[in-house]
Amino acid sequence: MSTNPPQGFLFSACAAGIKASGKPDLALALVPEGASAAAMFTRNQIVAAPVIVGREHLRRGQGLMRALIVNAGNANCATGKQGLKAATSVCRGLAKQIQVSPHRVFPSSTGIIGVQLPVEKIHAALPQLVSSATAGEHAFDQFANAILTTDTHKKVAAQSITFNQTQVILAGVAKGAGMIHPNMATMLVYLFTDLAASPRELQTCLKEAADQSFNNISIDGDTSTNDTALLLASGKSGVQLKSVRNEFLTSLTKVCRSLAGQIVADGEGVKHVVRLNIEQARTRGEARQIGRAIANSPLVKTAWAGADPNWGRILAAIGYSGVKINPERINIYLGEQQICRHGAACPFDHDRAHAYMSEPVYEIRIALGAGGAALEFLSCDLTAEYVRINADYSS
Amino acid sequence: MSTNPPQGFLFSACAAGIKASGKPDLALALVPEGASAAAMFTRNQIVAAPVIVGREHLRRGQGLMRALIVNAGNANCATGKQGLKAATSVCRGLAKQIQVSPHRVFPSSTGIIGVQLPVEKIHAALPQLVSSATAGEHAFDQFANAILTTDTHKKVAAQSITFNQTQVILAGVAKGAGMIHPNMATMLVYLFTDLAASPRELQTCLKEAADQSFNNISIDGDTSTNDTALLLASGKSGVQLKSVRNEFLTSLTKVCRSLAGQIVADGEGVKHVVRLNIEQARTRGEARQIGRAIANSPLVKTAWAGADPNWGRILAAIGYSGVKINPERINIYLGEQQICRHGAACPFDHDRAHAYMSEPVYEIRIALGAGGAALEFLSCDLTAEYVRINADYSS
Repeated sequence: MSTNPPQGFLFSACAAGIKASGKPDLALALVPEGASAAAMFTRNQIVAAPVIVGREHLRRGQGLMRALIVNAGNANCATGKQGLKAATSVCRGLAKQIQVSPHRVFPSSTGIIGVQLPVEKIHAALPQLVSSATAGEHAFDQFANAILTTDTHKKVAAQSITFNQTQVILAGVAKGAGMIHPNMATMLVYLFTDLAASPRELQTCLKEAADQSFNNISIDGDTSTNDTALLLASGKSGVQLKSVRNEFLTSLTKVCRSLAGQIVADGEGVKHVVRLNIEQARTRGEARQIGRAIANSPLVKTAWAGADPNWGRILAAIGYSGVKINPERINIYLGEQQICRHGAACPFDHDRAHAYMSEPVYEIRIALGAGGAALEFLSCDLTAEYVRINADYSS
Repeated sequence: MSTNPPQGFLFSACAAGIKASGKPDLALALVPEGASAAAMFTRNQIVAAPVIVGREHLRRGQGLMRALIVNAGNANCATGKQGLKAATSVCRGLAKQIQVSPHRVFPSSTGIIGVQLPVEKIHAALPQLVSSATAGEHAFDQFANAILTTDTHKKVAAQSITFNQTQVILAGVAKGAGMIHPNMATMLVYLFTDLAASPRELQTCLKEAADQSFNNISIDGDTSTNDTALLLASGKSGVQLKSVRNEFLTSLTKVCRSLAGQIVADGEGVKHVVRLNIEQARTRGEARQIGRAIANSPLVKTAWAGADPNWGRILAAIGYSGVKINPERINIYLGEQQICRHGAACPFDHDRAHAYMSEPVYEIRIALGAGGAALEFLSCDLTAEYVRINADYSS
């Protein structure tokens, strides 16, 4: 799928030699006339150098950005003072090329932890990267491709809004795969729009959309050191956010949910995506806590790998989630079949259940009988393939 | 290894047909003159019927027990009112055979969740089980063997104390394998001693010993619905607890630590046991919280499966543990080699590190630079074999 990016942005990508594979590993987005920016970062206390620098640049630049540079293949995390210098140096080098202040450049990195970033390779690639930046689908696709690590394919989603015959475009790209967890884990998400909005307005929208998407997914329960979601608004459509606020928020949430779904589906070794619908919870927070406990249980996830309708493991995970529950009010459904009634076994067609769980995407619905809140949490199975991928990542 | 059990206990075991494999699945311990009892149970809110009944019997019997009956192959959990009736019925049947009140019988179950306990098979086996109960090593070993599920071998540990030329024996058996997590997860532990003590004294000792052992281990992070640790004291040595309190507590802790170590080593698919020494923490609680975060990280555990010295994943897990840390004060050691200095990379011999991590048991030491508290947390790797075992447990 090709995606038409919004006006005001130029994209390019190249292979700078950071990835040993020689695949594209450096991506650039330029905003010649500047963009308002909003961002959300990992809640891990160990944060990568680019996260520290990016946060600082947003603060110093009061949320106005001119460029975004992303490298894959090296997370520039746990690299100490030298790592911070490296991230700053990359921003300075790019700022010089495009003649802006360094704090107008937003940096991101993803890849291996604890190895110094090969700054010289990036500097060497910058002139060509800047000069080849162009608008349009092809360049946007190249950007989406160069930010990937163990992902098996690129993740792109877009929506458009029409206001007074003017089209506003929102296009997003993401990078995910392993280490995905509710509080934003080695997930890089970049959202571009030609809407006009202040950094503060964008921040509110981004937080709401993330709460309906990225914060409700889990692949392996790990929380990364580099997670970043960045929303840039060039204003080139001329349409103000306040004119289309509801439509924009809906579109933003759709794009974020689509990217979140693509991230889970492409999780390392994932064979099945499971849509956990947690219903009748007291609060959305409690529904999320239960979704997370189920989604992070190795016993539940390995049962899913085997297409095994083992509702007992799900029930056990609910029991240790920390949310106060009444087991006798819990009902569990696998698609249209009930597999647990009032917290106990009930007769069901095992062959049909096994067949349903052999589908690449399916739904498990959990009714808690505690209240009126509901939430969809996306998770996946834990396969031998996941173990294989992660048992020899750095070696 | 054979273990000489303490005085005052008779043991027996048989294959009652609960396990489809036809292996021994029913274990009995009798205390003809009664024993003081103390117990700790799972903190999961979903609890199995025998846990509910066992807790009630301890309360009604004021901590005095005459018998313990354990079945493997069926957890009698999520079985509703019928499950409670089944657990009660087993206790009544045994109580009748040995002519005591039903609340003098303590029940335990382990195995699959959500399937009704085949009570009739247990009732049919009781007469022979009771009549064949004897003292001595052989019977004790049979007991230890019959409580196993996916365990590959039995878990036994013993200690003795001499007071005024009288020997006090403490012998323990355990069952573990998958689903092991700090707050006591599908772990059954039975500790027998011929010391004389009140139920209240025993409870204090058991809590202290568990805090130094079973609460510091994790295989897959799941918390079971059936976990039970029971300590029975027959008093037959004639030695009072208060005469040897410190020695007994030391012995009890040693036995519990030995059993905890055996449980982790026999975890499903485990190829490597990792002794995580968390040092320089502000409190033991914080050290445990960090140990748990590392031990439950699929990314850390799969790196261990590949003998990969990926300290970055360990650092990331520390960062999201919830404990406030200063990354720049963290040092990580793999055996005698330092692999992370001040939260960043430092040079080390990768081949030597890989060789060290290929050993079946090894140590990772994490110095937090935050305080004076320390704790050893036992964990293990996550292998493709674990996935295989758990992907087709109930199907």
